[in-house]
Amino acid sequence: MKAYIKNIVEINDNPVSRFFSLFIQTLILTSIVIFSMETIPDLEPQTRYILQIIETFCVIVFTIEYLLRIYVADQKVKFIFSFFGIIDFLAILPFYLSFGVDLKSLRALRFLRLFRIFKLVRYNRAINQFTRAIKSAKEQIFLFIFITLILIYFAAVGIYYFENQAQPEHFSSIFDSLWWAIITLTTVGYGDVYPITIGGKMFTFFILMIGLGIVAIPTGIISSALTKSVDTKDEE
Amino acid sequence: MKAYIKNIVEINDNPVSRFFSLFIQTLILTSIVIFSMETIPDLEPQTRYILQIIETFCVIVFTIEYLLRIYVADQKVKFIFSFFGIIDFLAILPFYLSFGVDLKSLRALRFLRLFRIFKLVRYNRAINQFTRAIKSAKEQIFLFIFITLILIYFAAVGIYYFENQAQPEHFSSIFDSLWWAIITLTTVGYGDVYPITIGGKMFTFFILMIGLGIVAIPTGIISSALTKSVDTKDEE
Amino acid sequence: MKAYIKNIVEINDNPVSRFFSLFIQTLILTSIVIFSMETIPDLEPQTRYILQIIETFCVIVFTIEYLLRIYVADQKVKFIFSFFGIIDFLAILPFYLSFGVDLKSLRALRFLRLFRIFKLVRYNRAINQFTRAIKSAKEQIFLFIFITLILIYFAAVGIYYFENQAQPEHFSSIFDSLWWAIITLTTVGYGDVYPITIGGKMFTFFILMIGLGIVAIPTGIISSALTKSVDTKDEE
Amino acid sequence: MKAYIKNIVEINDNPVSRFFSLFIQTLILTSIVIFSMETIPDLEPQTRYILQIIETFCVIVFTIEYLLRIYVADQKVKFIFSFFGIIDFLAILPFYLSFGVDLKSLRALRFLRLFRIFKLVRYNRAINQFTRAIKSAKEQIFLFIFITLILIYFAAVGIYYFENQAQPEHFSSIFDSLWWAIITLTTVGYGDVYPITIGGKMFTFFILMIGLGIVAIPTGIISSALTKSVDTKDEE
Repeated sequence: MKAYIKNIVEINDNPVSRFFSLFIQTLILTSIVIFSMETIPDLEPQTRYILQIIETFCVIVFTIEYLLRIYVADQKVKFIFSFFGIIDFLAILPFYLSFGVDLKSLRALRFLRLFRIFKLVRYNRAINQFTRAIKSAKEQIFLFIFITLILIYFAAVGIYYFENQAQPEHFSSIFDSLWWAIITLTTVGYGDVYPITIGGKMFTFFILMIGLGIVAIPTGIISSALTKSVDTKDEE
Repeated sequence: MKAYIKNIVEINDNPVSRFFSLFIQTLILTSIVIFSMETIPDLEPQTRYILQIIETFCVIVFTIEYLLRIYVADQKVKFIFSFFGIIDFLAILPFYLSFGVDLKSLRALRFLRLFRIFKLVRYNRAINQFTRAIKSAKEQIFLFIFITLILIYFAAVGIYYFENQAQPEHFSSIFDSLWWAIITLTTVGYGDVYPITIGGKMFTFFILMIGLGIVAIPTGIISSALTKSVDTKDEE
Repeated sequence: MKAYIKNIVEINDNPVSRFFSLFIQTLILTSIVIFSMETIPDLEPQTRYILQIIETFCVIVFTIEYLLRIYVADQKVKFIFSFFGIIDFLAILPFYLSFGVDLKSLRALRFLRLFRIFKLVRYNRAINQFTRAIKSAKEQIFLFIFITLILIYFAAVGIYYFENQAQPEHFSSIFDSLWWAIITLTTVGYGDVYPITIGGKMFTFFILMIGLGIVAIPTGIISSALTKSVDTKDEE
Repeated sequence: MKAYIKNIVEINDNPVSRFFSLFIQTLILTSIVIFSMETIPDLEPQTRYILQIIETFCVIVFTIEYLLRIYVADQKVKFIFSFFGIIDFLAILPFYLSFGVDLKSLRALRFLRLFRIFKLVRYNRAINQFTRAIKSAKEQIFLFIFITLILIYFAAVGIYYFENQAQPEHFSSIFDSLWWAIITLTTVGYGDVYPITIGGKMFTFFILMIGLGIVAIPTGIISSALTKSVDTKDEE
């Protein structure tokens, strides 16, 4: 019996287990959607009621899944304190904690429910590849993120000296200028803050010319590392 | 006779057929331009009239082309239900359906006319390469689009918790926050919504630092896959 | 004597000719700067006067250079109708045409003066490499620019159907929507036009997910082609 | 004794020296943070007082470090005029110069304090790699930055001719147009200036299509050069 359940829950090689994992994944996404919908202001009470029913159903299934996984685990303690063991636990915890309590009052708890998304990792190869890629290029990424931070800081200091007099409300301190530096060097450019002095504009040009290349590097490294890990995956 | 027409319509190796295909392509582009022009508000009646005449001419030619292609096809039924057979049919259908009916009232029909653009695929190598490239990298693209979606969702949830109090009108729910997340992580940055709290700004910085690299990956994969398929094409 | 001048003007292997070419380049940049400064509204008359003196000096030198190049050319006619021959001629033409005439009234002529910048090509390896790279990847670039155009057009049509009712002033026709499509898919995102309907926002998300990769391709091809041409250059 | 100090200050192979360098780096970052905080308007006097105390402490440590480095250097003069020797000196200079003087009045001096950030270079491999990479690709980078500048200038001239009449306040001269050209071609797109005429919009489309690829090149070269230098580093 236990072997049979183990076969369904842990190993992923027969139709039943495949249906099981698909079913769990669907519930995870459902509960994420519900989580999002509950943030919509002034929902009708009955809508909120229906959402809570579905939510309850998801949690019950997750609980059963969690208990089954403990039941079939060879080393129960080891599983409970493993990454997925903790994730599975955190995924159902908020529901039981918030029992009978008005959800509005404990945002932190609701937020915990997001841990469920990590349950998907168990089934998703992409995320595994992703984490592997990050690991492989860890050092380089940190090194160049460091350069990026220095550059952003310099951009912030520079623009502060150029724009502080002209727009004290937008560039009141270097910390405010940092916001500008980030939004500009990532080329997001919301347009909430931008230089208006000649000096500031020339400085922006200068910093953009050198900045874009540098900011692009960490992202470039991640991408290449990922593509590599994908290719190796394919070769396997 | 049939062999001669077939030579012109299907095979593309003699001046006449080359002129024929060029002629069809010109008409396709013309009818696309007309389609666009008809959306211009308050056109003069005679302008609209001229557009309709040209449109009628295009459709007649497309109809003749369609009938010829059926005529010369070795397996007529097979052609009619082939990709290009259906496209050719859809390209002329709306005109006959909307006969005598005021176009304004059936937008859906007018929209169908856009299918004509797919007729270009028959003559365009780029799109063939493109579809081939997509196919080759299909799995990877989906995997990383999945990661991108998770990241965007996390960004939306995070910003919602930071900005909801400060700007309830812009970040009223996680669905509204998703809009911000998409526009920011793609670095479009319209500037219609942006964080104003310290927490929100720091979160934006954090999410941009990790986000840009991830969002860049699927696009990167497509690009590389395409370049590959182009190179192979060249080697052929 | 002629051999000596030829040595200075055409071949670039002795100090004198190196100084000569440097001198010409400086004058080109100077006249470009003057061209720009003349566009500044309400300049003081004497400033404008000084600019014109420098401009005159530049033109005189360019004229002498032009005549010398004709003088030393082995096939004078061939040179006059060569790329650089025509550029050199166009560079001085506007000045003589606009003689005594108020510059304001003939903008087109002033615009012709910009051709001088092409005189730099003669001395600049980068631009040669650039044009060579473009040539090498010409076909591919056109193919994918074609895809990009189709995508942009689809984006424009889509957003038109979603936003036309909601914002008739911004998305009044497909041509107006094209502006939005270009600014969004290039991630410039000025923020002058953006979707406000749920449908429009979801469509924007969809088109951005597929669009960024495609728009990136032609630029990617150019970059790679250039880097290649540079590497080969180095190997030489 | 001297050998022992040298071991700690210069060579980085024993726990003590590792702690020492970590301690110095922490102080550098601390003094950078203090520098930033002092720019916050209307700080409470006691906060400012505390900042100055910490600042004083940092400078004292830096001074001791500087003297130690001179003490242990084999060729003292050589060290003093070496890159790091000068940096270490500039890092402490402003403090002693501004002694007793109100900081507000000498911004330049405060700005000098930023040189401290360069002290990090001594401990940071990324920056070494970065500078090495720049050196290796120096020529190419300059060549393509030159092309980029020409392109930006052309974009500015073009938009000036299209938009000057329509928006004299935003495109009053080519220099103003340059601002638009930079912000658009880097895809930052603040939205403070954008074309409104049909001609200007079509020109923007045209310039973006060719521009993005070109602007991407120097950054691309830097990135690739860096990745290369990193790989070589790994192979060592």
